[in-house]
Amino acid sequence: MLTLSLIGIGCGDPEQLTRAAITAINAADLVLIPRKGSAKSDLADLRRTICTDVLANKATSIAEFDVPVRDAGEADYRKGVDDWHDAVAAAWSRTIASHLGGEGKVALLIWGDPSLYDSSLRIARRLNPLPMIEVVPGITSIQALCAAHALPLNDIGEPFLVTTGRRLREGGWPQGVDTVVVMLDGGTAFQSLDPEGLHIWWGAYLGMPDQITMSGALTEVGPRIVALRQEARERHGWIMDSYILKRRP
Amino acid sequence: MLTLSLIGIGCGDPEQLTRAAITAINAADLVLIPRKGSAKSDLADLRRTICTDVLANKATSIAEFDVPVRDAGEADYRKGVDDWHDAVAAAWSRTIASHLGGEGKVALLIWGDPSLYDSSLRIARRLNPLPMIEVVPGITSIQALCAAHALPLNDIGEPFLVTTGRRLREGGWPQGVDTVVVMLDGGTAFQSLDPEGLHIWWGAYLGMPDQITMSGALTEVGPRIVALRQEARERHGWIMDSYILKRRP
Ligand SMILES: C[S@@+](CC[C@H](N)C(=O)[O-])C[C@H]1O[C@@H](n2cnc3c(N)ncnc32)[C@H](O)[C@@H]1O
Ligand SMILES: C[S@@+](CC[C@H](N)C(=O)[O-])C[C@H]1O[C@@H](n2cnc3c(N)ncnc32)[C@H](O)[C@@H]1O
Repeated sequence: MLTLSLIGIGCGDPEQLTRAAITAINAADLVLIPRKGSAKSDLADLRRTICTDVLANKATSIAEFDVPVRDAGEADYRKGVDDWHDAVAAAWSRTIASHLGGEGKVALLIWGDPSLYDSSLRIARRLNPLPMIEVVPGITSIQALCAAHALPLNDIGEPFLVTTGRRLREGGWPQGVDTVVVMLDGGTAFQSLDPEGLHIWWGAYLGMPDQITMSGALTEVGPRIVALRQEARERHGWIMDSYILKRRP
Repeated sequence: MLTLSLIGIGCGDPEQLTRAAITAINAADLVLIPRKGSAKSDLADLRRTICTDVLANKATSIAEFDVPVRDAGEADYRKGVDDWHDAVAAAWSRTIASHLGGEGKVALLIWGDPSLYDSSLRIARRLNPLPMIEVVPGITSIQALCAAHALPLNDIGEPFLVTTGRRLREGGWPQGVDTVVVMLDGGTAFQSLDPEGLHIWWGAYLGMPDQITMSGALTEVGPRIVALRQEARERHGWIMDSYILKRRP
């Protein structure tokens, strides 16, 4: 019997680890650490740091493995993702088989929470044989963003939408909401909106030593965020940022 | 100088506490525990259990206080909430003043995450004198719900909406999304929707010993959830539940 725990570790700050996450890491026979190429090596480093920091169980072993790269040349987006998930599942299976054989408890450390814009749950369902899957929730970047700004996410009794940079750029301001959370924005999709009446709460490298935040009327701080983001991205070689937009009448 | 830490403690399972939350509780001079009436006394009990469980600092004192009840008779909803926030802020101020005077670190344990459908941040801004406000994120009921079902919240690259039972009942299926999270539903607002093509992932008392979950096609499990919910509510005297709806073509 194989068990796979997808363990949310928060999004940068090791202090965001929950007691359940620490227990689950220590209950594992094998912890998998994915390596996603050198640009984001800081992130693999963080996973490594967390492991060595909280791992008290001498019987747990750690295995790093390279995550296959998605074929960006595939014209059919769905098919590209599908093939990639299969390739990642195969990489997990190989790493598990070579360390454990068919039995034991495997843990995978997931950035933020495993349920939010993360493919691990989908990939796990493609493993053969199918393991028992267990999810340990972790603090998401949305929560880290709100905490950094001491911002209530929703207005009283009101809904909010969580979406991606691409969606915002293509669809404009979404219908029926005054609060929008934007993740996975490769650029600064808020520039595609009419900034009048919009407020932004932005954050990059949230929870990490280099955390940057900025907030204010979009007309005013929008251009400053664009400049700051570009500068930070060049300095680090990569950036992870998210933001909340609110429409105020 | 007064500091107020709003500390997310997760939504029922003490194992959801983060390391940062435990540190913040132990850094406090005073921990406030709100009592919200006997029906939900299990919840005040949980806060008390968490406190005594993680508190290692002998210098920290704990103060319970009764949360003023909102005047449901006030016709103007906004004004009702406004007055109530003022009254709660006054209760906090009194409790803080009688235990600490004007200086020190106060901690307030917040259900789930302080940024999600919670009024503490708004109330804190009404305190006089205004303290320094610090937010420690906690696992939300949305994450506990997804984890219990091992469910990815969003579809790949797709948005999702978080809303309330009242909004769903009044507005029907929201525009532009195929995934909707429903919180604060005093009844079973999903019954107001045409169930055809909808799937539901439901959970009550998430993270608690009495956790119940149910999922499936809404046509099929909808009526079973309605019955189960009513039965559970009668047995406990109260219920806290949330659900995710997905539209599948
Ligand atoms: C693939 S998603 C993973 C989300 C993650 N599962 C979570 O719970 O936050 C990556 C996106 O999350 C956001 N993100 C993750 N970590 C972040 C951080 N430390 N600071 C700012 N944004 C972050 C960014 O929008 C980024 O594009
Ligand atoms: C006032 S809101 C507070 C939300 C909280 N701040 C959070 O982060 O989840 C209360 C609503 O949260 C949801 N909720 C909170 N705890 C829950 C639990 N243990 N199980 C199911 N739903 C819960 C329910 O929808 C409930 O109506």
